[in-house]
Amino acid sequence: MDFLPMNHGGDITTYRDLYDGELVDFSSNINPLGPPEGLYDELKNNFNSLTIYPDIQYRTLKSNIGKYLNCDCSNIVVGNGAVEVINNFIQLFDRVVTFVPCFSEYEKRGKVLKKEICKIPLSPDFTIDIDSVKRNLKKGDILILGNPNNPTGLRIEEDKLKLIYDIVNLKESFLLLDEAFFEFCPKDYDSIKMFKDKDYDRIAIIRAVTKFFALPGIRLGYACTSNKMARKYEKVELPWSINSLADCSGRYIFGCKEYIEKSKNYIQGERQYMTKALMKIKFINLYPTQSNYILIKSRKFNENFLFYYFLKRGILIRKCSSFDGLDDKHIRLAIKNRKNNERVIKIFKELENVEENMS
Amino acid sequence: MDFLPMNHGGDITTYRDLYDGELVDFSSNINPLGPPEGLYDELKNNFNSLTIYPDIQYRTLKSNIGKYLNCDCSNIVVGNGAVEVINNFIQLFDRVVTFVPCFSEYEKRGKVLKKEICKIPLSPDFTIDIDSVKRNLKKGDILILGNPNNPTGLRIEEDKLKLIYDIVNLKESFLLLDEAFFEFCPKDYDSIKMFKDKDYDRIAIIRAVTKFFALPGIRLGYACTSNKMARKYEKVELPWSINSLADCSGRYIFGCKEYIEKSKNYIQGERQYMTKALMKIKFINLYPTQSNYILIKSRKFNENFLFYYFLKRGILIRKCSSFDGLDDKHIRLAIKNRKNNERVIKIFKELENVEENMS
Repeated sequence: MDFLPMNHGGDITTYRDLYDGELVDFSSNINPLGPPEGLYDELKNNFNSLTIYPDIQYRTLKSNIGKYLNCDCSNIVVGNGAVEVINNFIQLFDRVVTFVPCFSEYEKRGKVLKKEICKIPLSPDFTIDIDSVKRNLKKGDILILGNPNNPTGLRIEEDKLKLIYDIVNLKESFLLLDEAFFEFCPKDYDSIKMFKDKDYDRIAIIRAVTKFFALPGIRLGYACTSNKMARKYEKVELPWSINSLADCSGRYIFGCKEYIEKSKNYIQGERQYMTKALMKIKFINLYPTQSNYILIKSRKFNENFLFYYFLKRGILIRKCSSFDGLDDKHIRLAIKNRKNNERVIKIFKELENVEENMS
Repeated sequence: MDFLPMNHGGDITTYRDLYDGELVDFSSNINPLGPPEGLYDELKNNFNSLTIYPDIQYRTLKSNIGKYLNCDCSNIVVGNGAVEVINNFIQLFDRVVTFVPCFSEYEKRGKVLKKEICKIPLSPDFTIDIDSVKRNLKKGDILILGNPNNPTGLRIEEDKLKLIYDIVNLKESFLLLDEAFFEFCPKDYDSIKMFKDKDYDRIAIIRAVTKFFALPGIRLGYACTSNKMARKYEKVELPWSINSLADCSGRYIFGCKEYIEKSKNYIQGERQYMTKALMKIKFINLYPTQSNYILIKSRKFNENFLFYYFLKRGILIRKCSSFDGLDDKHIRLAIKNRKNNERVIKIFKELENVEENMS
């Protein structure tokens, strides 16, 4: 038995009936602490906003995002989830350049918008080869990089990012940095601070509410870019693309400083805990991660076996063969709360004693 | 003093500060009875849906829409407001054909998607000339018609719609019927019933939650089309384009039969009341409407004069010179509740005694 090809995680609806109990979703990478306290009251108090059109320019929302990111609100663009922001930027360029494996929508949106696609393999350790960037990039290209990359979890090193930006500049192309998982990462560098003195010329940095604020249902993505590019973006975006309650939550969540700090520390701790525990499992290789998910290579079971083995025990994991550049020995796991992380580790320990199954 | 060109109604945020009190919005055409009772409780009970991804296939939502429209759920496609549905259909064709004046987004989305545009003027009485359709339409075109048309308020006669569909079929093009205001219209014919025996081949009929259910902030549009076209649409649509609470409201509102009947009757009554009263105002011409808005031509004042005259009295109206095919003597008014309709009529009566101002 199998379903439609799995291009995304989080598809609880499809698999819900296969487990007699509440399925825990390790296939989408959402903050396990849930949304900030007080948000639901804020939404309740703003139900009336549903009866009028949202501000077509989203002025208050952009102003709040600007304050959160510490940049001017004229640099902010918004969209119906990070994926719409990606889509709108792609519309403005001729060719999409990606390094694979990466988030499947970079290529998919490029194809839907009838753009040429150039896919470059990442190095075996999943880092970006600077020479490949130099060789492949040309004028009019949009280079899209996940930072950290999905599904690998790897963040681009600060110096390398500067080098990549210099090449992008030289070639008169554009860099779209997808930082939807930014807040989960170690506090090394902040690209929005880093490119401020360049006025975000030839770069846009995407962030999102989905993952860190645990609101995948709210659909709110945003990016910081140059004034010039922001005005171009506004010319292609759909009107009223953000729901009034998403707009309203943007007026609340960015001010929840305590929640933000607590979430960062929590994920940091669980990442260490989970990495350490999984390193002891002999039949898997872990790839180093700076995010809230872990890419795993199994030397004993294929993704389908693992998927249904975990599913039968109430855990939804992410198969990875749909990622260009990964085969059916790879799975991706979110980092969740201690109790659920322990459940996953226990299942892995159990699997050590199960006979090989690679069929 | 003036602001950005006005391409849409409902921009309360821009004009709010120019009136000392609550502005009444006659510029967007929303059901004055507000959303169905009980909806807010339903949303409250579903806040937890925000913490998981919406069903990427929106199965329950499509099933409920299918029941409401009396067609199979495999014929239903959904989008982030009717405007995203329009956008997604345009992506699938080579050239956009419209009759002007019409909703500005037909042309705008066509241009953003780099499609060729063919604009044909409506006849002086704002009806569609069948010979123009025959002469202009060709293979690979998408003909987009508002039914009723916005801003004119005119619905296509049943026989004429059949004729247009036959031409579309013959020419191997496609008809996108934008019926975002359908429920406000007299109960003459239902195009979804009408084209059922054709399996919606070469046609899609758009409906929306925005206007009739008074939820412009929720962003939920949908359409009924052939199975084949629905599968094509799904290939170009953005994933998770509908917010979880919009998805949830779709599980509630279509079942509110009493509210639906009451709203239909209310608008019917107010349309008669308002038309009758405005016909007595000597300096304006009314265009016949079957919808919940009225297009008006003023022989004495231009749109800017009227706009600020009404604004100073707490009423936001829709200037119409931004509509291709209309000049600055036209304004559009929504039909609202009796109390507010009376306010508008009173202002018109007052204006009869004001000196001409066409500058």
